[in-house]
Amino acid sequence: MLSTTPRTTLGRSKHRGLTDREDLYAVLDAGLVCHLGVVVDGAPMVVPTGYGRIGDTLYLHGSTGATSLRGTGDVCVTVTHLDGVVLARSVFHHSLNYRSAMIYGPLRPVEEDEERLAGLRAITEQLAPGQWDAAREPTRKELAATSVLALSLAEASVKVRQGPPLDDEEDYALPIWAGVLPLHSAWGVPEADPAMTMDLDVPKHITSRIMPIR
Amino acid sequence: MLSTTPRTTLGRSKHRGLTDREDLYAVLDAGLVCHLGVVVDGAPMVVPTGYGRIGDTLYLHGSTGATSLRGTGDVCVTVTHLDGVVLARSVFHHSLNYRSAMIYGPLRPVEEDEERLAGLRAITEQLAPGQWDAAREPTRKELAATSVLALSLAEASVKVRQGPPLDDEEDYALPIWAGVLPLHSAWGVPEADPAMTMDLDVPKHITSRIMPIR
Repeated sequence: MLSTTPRTTLGRSKHRGLTDREDLYAVLDAGLVCHLGVVVDGAPMVVPTGYGRIGDTLYLHGSTGATSLRGTGDVCVTVTHLDGVVLARSVFHHSLNYRSAMIYGPLRPVEEDEERLAGLRAITEQLAPGQWDAAREPTRKELAATSVLALSLAEASVKVRQGPPLDDEEDYALPIWAGVLPLHSAWGVPEADPAMTMDLDVPKHITSRIMPIR
Repeated sequence: MLSTTPRTTLGRSKHRGLTDREDLYAVLDAGLVCHLGVVVDGAPMVVPTGYGRIGDTLYLHGSTGATSLRGTGDVCVTVTHLDGVVLARSVFHHSLNYRSAMIYGPLRPVEEDEERLAGLRAITEQLAPGQWDAAREPTRKELAATSVLALSLAEASVKVRQGPPLDDEEDYALPIWAGVLPLHSAWGVPEADPAMTMDLDVPKHITSRIMPIR
């Protein structure tokens, strides 16, 4: 079960809330980037950034100088998937089908070498499965230039909307087309780096991704 | 030209910053949702939400009770498009190709009827072009339940990464495939609401969207 702190208890659209920890994992594991919200000088700052998950911990990384990772206090990490535009009979009931997760908590700087490497591996594999083993691993200097931060998944909420529009009763009689325009994401054909000096096949762990993803 | 306040001046990856107002419009106009960051009780909250643009004003809306729209002080609105995963020869240089915009400023509650309607129309048309005219317009009651908020585009930054990986000089000799795995978004086949009681064709303003979008 997910937490029920005031800020993870949905005030509106309660029926869209999911409460299983597995629902949270599913939304997170399907994503490429999150939107990280931090408070800088009293004002919010929202940056898109990669992430990885190990169990009930989310890992983020960045340059040691990054403003967004320097703060103290809680952050909010949001992951959103758009699945379609909901076309209702009334303007008011237009909506989106989506899956989203919000996680609240403080960022814990990861100092220990083993956890730092595990976190970076999770972040790389989230974006590009198989690449940690395929590419050159980080050097000591690269590791020193990288902040790794951990966020507990203890305080989180998940919200999902799916299915057709929900119109007002009397509007169903209107001669207006209603339904969902689905939105899909798909990988394209890999584009080799023009600077590649060798004739190498695209590795199987990359080509195997090229199918529609939802 | 875009603004050059401290928070819209890129500290890192300066070469990825674009400074034309048209670049900002292009990123915003291509999006479906933004991530709105607000500060609630001192902590950040990041919510995905629709938006629309009229000139140099961004419009947001929500229930009059929504926590995310009740605050005072500045907000941060971020719009992100993911264009591909950048597969480098080293783990360290893995990246994403993306286009993103960040806008800072206070939300101005829109009180005047004409601007409220124009803002709502822009939000609806951003999500579903043509639907404002096709669907039933908002009633007085629906309008009363809706907050419309305006955010000036005066303080904004745009960041874009495109193209192949940039590896360290000595890594180009490694026998590792490098390049970009492009990511595309595409509309699927419209799904009619099963509750539709009439046999209506899908309108042209909807079918005309069904082509690959970037």
